[in-house]
Amino acid sequence: MPSDALCEGHRTHRTNIQAIPLKTTAYRRFTLDEAVGWVKHLCESKGCSPAVADSLAHATVAAQARGNQAVGFRHLADYLPGFSSGRINPRAEPRISRAGAMIFKSDAQGGIAQLGVDRCFDSLCHAAHANGMATLSQCNSFTSGELGDYTLRFAQAGLIALAVANGPALVAVPGARSKTYSTNPLSFAAPSADGVPLLFDQASSAAAFVNIAHAASTGSDIPEGWAVDQHGNGTRNAVAALAGALLPFGGHRGANLMLMVEVLAAGLTGAKWSLDASDFNQGNQTPGCGLLILLLAPAFFSEGFEQRLASQMTRLTRMGVHRPGWERQHSTVTAQNEGISLPVDLLEQLSRL
Amino acid sequence: MPSDALCEGHRTHRTNIQAIPLKTTAYRRFTLDEAVGWVKHLCESKGCSPAVADSLAHATVAAQARGNQAVGFRHLADYLPGFSSGRINPRAEPRISRAGAMIFKSDAQGGIAQLGVDRCFDSLCHAAHANGMATLSQCNSFTSGELGDYTLRFAQAGLIALAVANGPALVAVPGARSKTYSTNPLSFAAPSADGVPLLFDQASSAAAFVNIAHAASTGSDIPEGWAVDQHGNGTRNAVAALAGALLPFGGHRGANLMLMVEVLAAGLTGAKWSLDASDFNQGNQTPGCGLLILLLAPAFFSEGFEQRLASQMTRLTRMGVHRPGWERQHSTVTAQNEGISLPVDLLEQLSRL
Repeated sequence: MPSDALCEGHRTHRTNIQAIPLKTTAYRRFTLDEAVGWVKHLCESKGCSPAVADSLAHATVAAQARGNQAVGFRHLADYLPGFSSGRINPRAEPRISRAGAMIFKSDAQGGIAQLGVDRCFDSLCHAAHANGMATLSQCNSFTSGELGDYTLRFAQAGLIALAVANGPALVAVPGARSKTYSTNPLSFAAPSADGVPLLFDQASSAAAFVNIAHAASTGSDIPEGWAVDQHGNGTRNAVAALAGALLPFGGHRGANLMLMVEVLAAGLTGAKWSLDASDFNQGNQTPGCGLLILLLAPAFFSEGFEQRLASQMTRLTRMGVHRPGWERQHSTVTAQNEGISLPVDLLEQLSRL
Repeated sequence: MPSDALCEGHRTHRTNIQAIPLKTTAYRRFTLDEAVGWVKHLCESKGCSPAVADSLAHATVAAQARGNQAVGFRHLADYLPGFSSGRINPRAEPRISRAGAMIFKSDAQGGIAQLGVDRCFDSLCHAAHANGMATLSQCNSFTSGELGDYTLRFAQAGLIALAVANGPALVAVPGARSKTYSTNPLSFAAPSADGVPLLFDQASSAAAFVNIAHAASTGSDIPEGWAVDQHGNGTRNAVAALAGALLPFGGHRGANLMLMVEVLAAGLTGAKWSLDASDFNQGNQTPGCGLLILLLAPAFFSEGFEQRLASQMTRLTRMGVHRPGWERQHSTVTAQNEGISLPVDLLEQLSRL
């Protein structure tokens, strides 16, 4: 499985732009600042407040620069109709509160997930470095976006970060008669002395929804173990899978992890259970998603964590172990130096949405 | 997969008693108190301090009462030779320190893992209920034992608990040329208003080592995806698997989780990396394992968590979803009322060790 698939794993909803490859022949090149400006302008033209537009623009361009295209510019095809339909409040200001010194709570007020994280970011870093631990607990938002963007930023600030999120039900675990959980992604990042944080960001489902939608649009089969049809029987037919449900990765063990993510991201935060979250792409209600980010400051636990991790990752890599986060870092550095190229037809479609 | 297999998943090392079924015809019945007394007496006769004997006896009987036999009385076949060989310091008193209000650190001093948890248990509960979060970080112990015993006890005290542990390398992740991680178990528990905490406790490997050892001893094949042979090729031959390595559950996603457990349980705690941990069953060195337990107090996050979880678990169970922890609770209640029966030949073998 390519690391791209891993990191796109939590893109759970389907749009035409996501599912169907564009017939791109022309590209437009942007510096990262230009790209942020382009997205920000587009979002403001759809009614977003400057804060919402800025937060979403930075997250979108960061994902695109990391090579994580499904939650980059293409993901705007989910946000822009969301703003106009009422599924996302384009001017929502998250309501932030604290419970003690280390727990930050955000009610996203039906807006994007990213702004609550941005609003708390500096305070969370300060609290974690001062106390050894901190947590952000958010409810009532649209999709979490790229979870790895959050954990990576905290790792770049010297913290270990574990993030989980939920959304509308798409996955049927073994034994269940219907869909009970979203793809319930989990992301983990840790700082390393060599400057390349460890980072992964993956759905708890066997495959991202977008992969199945893509297979359906091209008439391809899907591997066994990805999905069941509407009768709950395993299927390799992508169209039948779209009418059915995704499966967790890793059988019963994966189903247990999915339940853990659900309890933390929806139960603890007070967000909607996946079963009760409304669709990302239809209707005028916020899905009311939840997000939990746990932070640990290594210096409180043991000495030289970042050096130890860097040495160990070098050692593991020499043994053939994949180092998650490495390609993302490389892609980001390239994008910072050379900018990013975006398909002109994608930009045109987004502008027309 | 039966839930027993899930919960035995982190038993990673092999003994004859574990691998080969006893030809039991006679059983001896104990009340739980009698069983604790029997184990405590046995451990003290092998040189354990009263504190070590008491801690291990309670953990052993609790696992047995839960029906988790691999980490119940049978697991004593790993501990008793460990005490006499020097792999476990039978009189070690953990060195406990604090880093701030919520972080407790334990150096197990080469002793059992359980005593460090017991020594910190009340303080951890107090810290978590006072601040919303707390953590125990332990290094330098023998095997973690039954991780679910720790998380369940914290859940019974009203806390959400996430625990991870490591040990000697047994697992080769995809791409790796040799074993790099232990089975790196993860356990999660959460309190529920109906009095039955959610609980799972599972290896991050596709199967527990003991299952493969058992198949080898009976000449059975193992399922695809459990293990590779010594050349790194997938194998269904259990004997070849014993000479090779276990595989993670869930492919690349499972390998990422395994790395996360390694970073938290070994990297953050300052314990030995799995690659550097010595054998549980040979030599005279402590494996120097790590254990990290994260605690969250739900009341700091949202109102009515335990009630919400109880309702949601009822709803999910009606939809056919397995509720992890339910059978364990039922088994424990039965054991409390009726006692436990143990094979006489197992008791005799343990007494002779």
